[in-house]
Amino acid sequence: MSKQELEKVAANGLINRRHLLGLGLAGMGTVASTSLLGADAGLNLEIPGWSKAPGANASGYGSRSRFTDDMQRMAGNPNPLYPGGGSSRSPLHQLHGSITPNSLHFERHHAGIPDIDPAQHKLVIHGLVRQPLVFSYEDLLRYPMVSKIYFLECSGNSGSLFGPNPADGSAQSLHGLVSGAEWTGIPLSTLLDEAGVYPEARWINAVGADAASMGRSIPLNRAMDDVMLALFQNGEPVRPGQGYPMRLFVPGCEGNISVKWLTQIKLTREPTHFRDETSKYTDTRLDRKSQQFTFPMGTKSVITAPSGQMKLERQGIYQVTGIAWSGRGSIRRVEVSADGGRTWADAMIDSHQSEKALARFRIPWQWSGGDAVLQSRATDSQGNVQPTRTSLVTEKGNISTYHFHGIQSWAVNTAGDVANVYA
Amino acid sequence: MSKQELEKVAANGLINRRHLLGLGLAGMGTVASTSLLGADAGLNLEIPGWSKAPGANASGYGSRSRFTDDMQRMAGNPNPLYPGGGSSRSPLHQLHGSITPNSLHFERHHAGIPDIDPAQHKLVIHGLVRQPLVFSYEDLLRYPMVSKIYFLECSGNSGSLFGPNPADGSAQSLHGLVSGAEWTGIPLSTLLDEAGVYPEARWINAVGADAASMGRSIPLNRAMDDVMLALFQNGEPVRPGQGYPMRLFVPGCEGNISVKWLTQIKLTREPTHFRDETSKYTDTRLDRKSQQFTFPMGTKSVITAPSGQMKLERQGIYQVTGIAWSGRGSIRRVEVSADGGRTWADAMIDSHQSEKALARFRIPWQWSGGDAVLQSRATDSQGNVQPTRTSLVTEKGNISTYHFHGIQSWAVNTAGDVANVYA
Repeated sequence: MSKQELEKVAANGLINRRHLLGLGLAGMGTVASTSLLGADAGLNLEIPGWSKAPGANASGYGSRSRFTDDMQRMAGNPNPLYPGGGSSRSPLHQLHGSITPNSLHFERHHAGIPDIDPAQHKLVIHGLVRQPLVFSYEDLLRYPMVSKIYFLECSGNSGSLFGPNPADGSAQSLHGLVSGAEWTGIPLSTLLDEAGVYPEARWINAVGADAASMGRSIPLNRAMDDVMLALFQNGEPVRPGQGYPMRLFVPGCEGNISVKWLTQIKLTREPTHFRDETSKYTDTRLDRKSQQFTFPMGTKSVITAPSGQMKLERQGIYQVTGIAWSGRGSIRRVEVSADGGRTWADAMIDSHQSEKALARFRIPWQWSGGDAVLQSRATDSQGNVQPTRTSLVTEKGNISTYHFHGIQSWAVNTAGDVANVYA
Repeated sequence: MSKQELEKVAANGLINRRHLLGLGLAGMGTVASTSLLGADAGLNLEIPGWSKAPGANASGYGSRSRFTDDMQRMAGNPNPLYPGGGSSRSPLHQLHGSITPNSLHFERHHAGIPDIDPAQHKLVIHGLVRQPLVFSYEDLLRYPMVSKIYFLECSGNSGSLFGPNPADGSAQSLHGLVSGAEWTGIPLSTLLDEAGVYPEARWINAVGADAASMGRSIPLNRAMDDVMLALFQNGEPVRPGQGYPMRLFVPGCEGNISVKWLTQIKLTREPTHFRDETSKYTDTRLDRKSQQFTFPMGTKSVITAPSGQMKLERQGIYQVTGIAWSGRGSIRRVEVSADGGRTWADAMIDSHQSEKALARFRIPWQWSGGDAVLQSRATDSQGNVQPTRTSLVTEKGNISTYHFHGIQSWAVNTAGDVANVYA
C-alpha cells in the first residue's frame, strides 16, 4: 500500500478500513520472542495473582471495575440562586457504541431530581377530552408498549460554539448533553384515544411533578405520531434523573420537551406558552425576534476521539470515532476530514435503528506527527447536511445559544495536543 | 368490537393490537370527576412533597430509584466445594425492551470475578502464526472497532425443563441466563490477520485469565467471521463480571465460548478439548454418546410477563410480552397462544437489529378469569421453528441439560396464579 494510494481516500492520513490490513498496523502489537512463547509449553509470562485464586462471588446488582471509576459525568449546579438547576454531561470521549449506560446518560434538571414514590404518583389526562382520566403507575404497566432506540439532546448542547472564540473544552464539556438509549413505553396516542380527543384540540400541554413544574406544549399531530409515555430505559425503569416513574419522550426533539416526572397532559386549542417555551428554549434571531417551538434537532455529528484535551502520545494509526444523529430521520452518511474540511472520506457507520438514534462512525487515521484539523460532517436520510460553524452562525446569529449543530473542529498540533478550534 | 370478532385472532382472549382501541381498555384509567378537574383551575389533586421543593443535585455516576431496589439478579454460588462457581440470573420478569442494563445482565463464573488491572493485562496471539504478538489494553484501544447488539445465553439456561416434572419457578429462575446488550470491540479477524495465520491452522483456542483458566476451541472459519474481541458493553468498558478488561464474543453461541478475561489465543490444527468442551458443555444423547461443539443456540422465546409466580389481581386487559432469539439469524415471527397451543396469534415484534439479538414481542390479552395456558413460539429468518418441549425431549433425551429451547408453558388458574407447567 503506497502513501500515494492512501491519499486517494482523503488527505493527511485518513485510511479506508479495507486498506488497513495492508499497513499491518505496524507497531501496535508487540512482537513476542520465541523465548516467551514456546509452541507447546504455552505462555511463559508471569502469572498474575488474579489467575491463581477464585475472585469475587456473583452479586444481585453488578458494578463496574474500580479501574474505570474515573469515568464520570461532568455534573454541576452552577447557580446558587437557582437550587436544583443543573446538568450532568456524558463522558462522550470515553464511551463507545451508540447506547449510553443509564448511569452515564446526560441529565438536565430545573429543580433537582425528585424522589417520587410510584404508588403515590398520578398521571392525569384532561382538557378537551370526552372523558378526563387518571392513571396510576400500576394501571399503566398493563398497557401495550413499544421499544425504540433514540438519541436525546439538550437544545443547549454545544452552545458555547456560538461564542466569538473557541472555548478550551473536551467532547464531554462542549458536547456532552447528548446520549442514546432504548426507550420503552406506551404510545401516547393510545392514552389520548382512550380519553377521547375533541376535534377542536390542536395542542397538548405536558407538566412534570418536579418543583419547577416544567411544562411544554406539543402540537397534537406530533403527539399522536411517535411520542411515547416512557417507563423504561435500557430495560430497567427510567432513573429518577430521567423522570422516574414516567416521562414524556418526543423522539428527535430537544430534551426539555420530553417532560420528566410527567403528571399532567391537557388537551388545548392553543400552545400554553410556558416559561420554558418563552423566556427559555427559544431561538432569538438576528432581527431580535425569538423563534418558538424549534422541534426537530439539527443534523449533527461530533468526533469523540481524538477530541479536545486529549494528547496523542505517539505517531501511528488511530481510530477516529464519533456519533451522529438527526431529529429528522436516520444518518445516511458521515464524512471525516483531517485537513480542516478541504478533503473528506466516508466513515463506516454502525447504526442499530434507522430513525432518530445515535449512529456510531469510525475511520482509521494515520497521524504522522504533523498539524491536523479533524472534522466530521453528517448527512441524514432527508438529505440534510450538517453545516459549517460559520454558515450556521451567519444564518442564525449568536444572540441565542440553542440548537447549535455546526461542524466541530479538533486541531491536533505537532506535540499531539488536541484542542477545540474554529476552522 | 364483538367477542366473536376477537376470537378470530386467537382463542381465550388474545387480541390484535389494532382491536384494542375498540375495547376502550375499560377500567384501566380511572374516570376523573369534574370536581377533581376544573377546566381552567387545573388539577386539584393533593400536591405531593416532591413538587414543592427542589430535589437532589446532579451526580457523576447516576443510580436508580430506591423504589426499584428489589430488582435484583438471582445470584448464587451453590457448591461450597467449588469456590467462585456460580451465576446471577437476569430478572426477566421485570425487564422491558431488548437491552439489559449492565448491572442486571446475567453472569456465569467458574472461579469468581477476577479484579484485573488493565495496565497489567496482556493478550497473546500465538501458535500457528507467522508472528506471535502481545497486546496491551492501550494498544487495543487504537484498533478499528464495530458495535453490534447481540443476545448472550448460557447453554444451561432453562435446563430444568428437561426434568420429568415442571419446576416451580419464575421467568428469572428458570430462564434468566439470557440477556441482550450492545457490544463494541475489534473484529478478531483484524488481530489474526496481523499475526498472520498459517494455512494449516483450523481452530483457535481461547483462554481466560481467571483462576479457572477457562478455555474453549472455536473453528477458525467462525473466528474469522463475526467474532469480536469485546472491550465495551452498552457504551462503557465491559464489567469485571463480563470479562474486564476484554472478552471474546462469539455471536449466537453459548455464553461459555465467549471466553471472559481473555488472555491467550492460540492457532491450532485441531480443537484443544478443554475441560469445558469435554466433561461439561457437551450434549449427552440417548445413545450415551456426547456431542461436542454445539455452536448456534436454538430458536427460542420466553414469555416474561405474565410469568411464573406472578399473580393476576383482576380480570381485564394484560400485555403478554417476552423475548425471542436465535443463534442462526433474526427473529421473523413470534406467535402466542392462550390455550396451550391449540390456537395462535402473531405478536408484534420490536427488533433493533436483525441478527442474533433479542427481539421483544407483545400482544394484548383479555383475561376473563378462566384457566389459560400461555405459550410463545418463535420462528427465525432461516425458517427454524421453536419446538415443543415434548418434541425436543423426544429428540434429544434428557440425560444432558444443555441447550433447552423448547416452548415454555405458563398456566394461569382461576385465582390468577401463574405457574410453569408441561402442556
